Amino acid sequence: MSNVPDLHLNGAKLLEQIKALGDIGVDLTHGGRTRIALGDAEKTGRDQLVVWMRELELDIQVDRIGNIFGSLRSANDTGHEQPFMMGSHIDTVTNAGALDGCYGVLAGLAVQRAYREAGILPDRTITVGAFTNEEGVRYQPDMMGSLVYAGGLSVQEALDTLGTDGSRLGDELIRIGYAGDLEPGAVIPHEYLELHIEQGPILEAENTLIGVVENLQGISWQQVTVKGNANHAGTTPTRLRHDAGYVACAVTTELRRLAKASGTTLATVGCMTFEPNVINVIPRRASFTVDLRDPDEGKLIKAEQHLAVFLAQLAEEEGVSIETEQLVRFQPVTFDSSLANAIEISAQRFGFRHRRMTSGAGHDAQMIARIAPAAMIFVPSRGGISHNPREHTDDDQLLAGAEVLLDVVKRRLTAPH
Amino acid sequence: MSNVPDLHLNGAKLLEQIKALGDIGVDLTHGGRTRIALGDAEKTGRDQLVVWMRELELDIQVDRIGNIFGSLRSANDTGHEQPFMMGSHIDTVTNAGALDGCYGVLAGLAVQRAYREAGILPDRTITVGAFTNEEGVRYQPDMMGSLVYAGGLSVQEALDTLGTDGSRLGDELIRIGYAGDLEPGAVIPHEYLELHIEQGPILEAENTLIGVVENLQGISWQQVTVKGNANHAGTTPTRLRHDAGYVACAVTTELRRLAKASGTTLATVGCMTFEPNVINVIPRRASFTVDLRDPDEGKLIKAEQHLAVFLAQLAEEEGVSIETEQLVRFQPVTFDSSLANAIEISAQRFGFRHRRMTSGAGHDAQMIARIAPAAMIFVPSRGGISHNPREHTDDDQLLAGAEVLLDVVKRRLTAPH
Repeated sequence: MSNVPDLHLNGAKLLEQIKALGDIGVDLTHGGRTRIALGDAEKTGRDQLVVWMRELELDIQVDRIGNIFGSLRSANDTGHEQPFMMGSHIDTVTNAGALDGCYGVLAGLAVQRAYREAGILPDRTITVGAFTNEEGVRYQPDMMGSLVYAGGLSVQEALDTLGTDGSRLGDELIRIGYAGDLEPGAVIPHEYLELHIEQGPILEAENTLIGVVENLQGISWQQVTVKGNANHAGTTPTRLRHDAGYVACAVTTELRRLAKASGTTLATVGCMTFEPNVINVIPRRASFTVDLRDPDEGKLIKAEQHLAVFLAQLAEEEGVSIETEQLVRFQPVTFDSSLANAIEISAQRFGFRHRRMTSGAGHDAQMIARIAPAAMIFVPSRGGISHNPREHTDDDQLLAGAEVLLDVVKRRLTAPH
Repeated sequence: MSNVPDLHLNGAKLLEQIKALGDIGVDLTHGGRTRIALGDAEKTGRDQLVVWMRELELDIQVDRIGNIFGSLRSANDTGHEQPFMMGSHIDTVTNAGALDGCYGVLAGLAVQRAYREAGILPDRTITVGAFTNEEGVRYQPDMMGSLVYAGGLSVQEALDTLGTDGSRLGDELIRIGYAGDLEPGAVIPHEYLELHIEQGPILEAENTLIGVVENLQGISWQQVTVKGNANHAGTTPTRLRHDAGYVACAVTTELRRLAKASGTTLATVGCMTFEPNVINVIPRRASFTVDLRDPDEGKLIKAEQHLAVFLAQLAEEEGVSIETEQLVRFQPVTFDSSLANAIEISAQRFGFRHRRMTSGAGHDAQMIARIAPAAMIFVPSRGGISHNPREHTDDDQLLAGAEVLLDVVKRRLTAPH
């Protein structure tokens, strides 16, 4: 076992790069910045990232789905070593904050920079990846670059994806100059670590600095459509109603009861539409979405089953028909316990208040976890807000997260392997 | 007391006129007909009505708000007698049925025709009124012509009303040639009777032919706006949510419970909107309407109070703010018991199955009830459907209603007065 090298995080440089990348695609009128995957602003962001990778003299590779990798090679690496990989994404939603995704990518560069500035080569190649189209705003599905990389979607299918603007993803990759040659998944990481803002309120609410993310919730998205009768609100007795809107609301109310009773299951009705949507007409049609999440697959299935039974009962009682469509279904992901332990130990070493937690949002790490041991580190998000210009994490919190990342990496690379 | 005259309903003519009026403004593509108040198609409908009034040699008057009156004068009427009035409206919603409103007006003409065809003058002048803009599609409020006639809204204010298309009502009245000279309300009816389709499912469900309408529900319309926080559906624990959508749905569910418990109160949430209306974002804002109705003012107030208390509790529990706006508030109307009794006796005389009932919808009769004894007669609506091309009442049911109307009128006019 080698000695742990004496490395120092260049915090000023990290914050400077977060700010600089956040200025690309900035919207001075509405606030925030917009770098939709493979659009012009995101190309500018990619170009900036590559410039910074070149400054660190990294070995830069782009794969066929446009994922960008910058590798700081170990002394022994002839190009075939399994790297320690860090990463995330630099595409954004519309009017986004500066942190989501970018923080993890740039903190990865900061780890590589610590080696460079100390004049030390790592015992294992360290690769930073920026995955294509994590947000899924223009092209579905989201987390596409890491999904393709992990073999969950074929390259050709991904390249043929048509965007909300009718464009073909593969053509846009060529247009912006990021249609690379590397086969996605050709390089399997030895381990994968992703640093990210929480995008939720738990760490802030508990005054905790570091989230040791040990798993990621399973997700079940359904579209529910209720069809009843559009009768007159004034002339139709309650017993003769077939009120699609009432049914939709009763389901939403029951889902809240279910979530409260469960303790871990989250249930959200985010979209809701009534037709004809007229004040004195009983809704003929109600359409709504159900977002169910749980870190335990068994409990997620139980929630789905409860919903199905409740829908069937209500349809019978109210005399309406109900159709459901599964939109998304991901099983929960359990991260690598050895990596999670390492994060916890590093946080303890710094004296940072920390807690084990579940990622409620989807991340590239959940895809890479299919092919390599993976885990995540969270730092607090003020007010739990993300995907919004008001997304914020204090500088010292950002730096604390990066310190933990650096500490985990340098210790993992000096452990026997 | 005079003898009751031997009068006969010309049923074929009534049905023919209902069909002919229903053909004006017909939409062959979408079904139904559209004669929005003071539009070109409604002018054609007015012109047709006036032609038919002329055929009956009625004394035709148009008042300043465009209400059309056709009077069959008694032998003694020098123009100042209080008439027995029947009426309703001939304007429609978009893609309407042929019956709503028109049936009451044309059945009034059928009563006058029965006198003409028998060569008998009535002991009291019989007037049929077609009131302007009952539907309120283009100009608010609805039931405007009868409201102005009853003194509930000044003529000038009504004439200055701007439509959804920016037009001024008074200008449109002049344009279509129905800005009359008669002062609204100058002639106070002795009694007022309105025959109408139920627009609800009760008579059909109970296999009953005649509804003796003894009162009309009070109406309370509110717009409710809930403001919470748009947090991430995956990362926000249930206890930290401020879910405007959930609150809106919990209110809707509670209103159903209230309606069921009350027995007479009707509660409908017809409009519902979520923002940002995204599947994985907790709704920041929910906006919905509440339509409460009850024939008993005390119970209506109780329902409003229950809603207010429930809203305040929920706002506290969920950490959201809630604003309410009263859109419409009408007290219940009690119709004239002597007229209601007369309807019941006539229905019994014909052997028609009948029941006392409450009008759930608003009608011109509720306005005229402010200035004269009034009541209504209902006939069944198939499936409770109205304001729709599928609105339907069987011909024999339409004729039964008109027979009762004629019977009540001829007996009222021969009673001592």
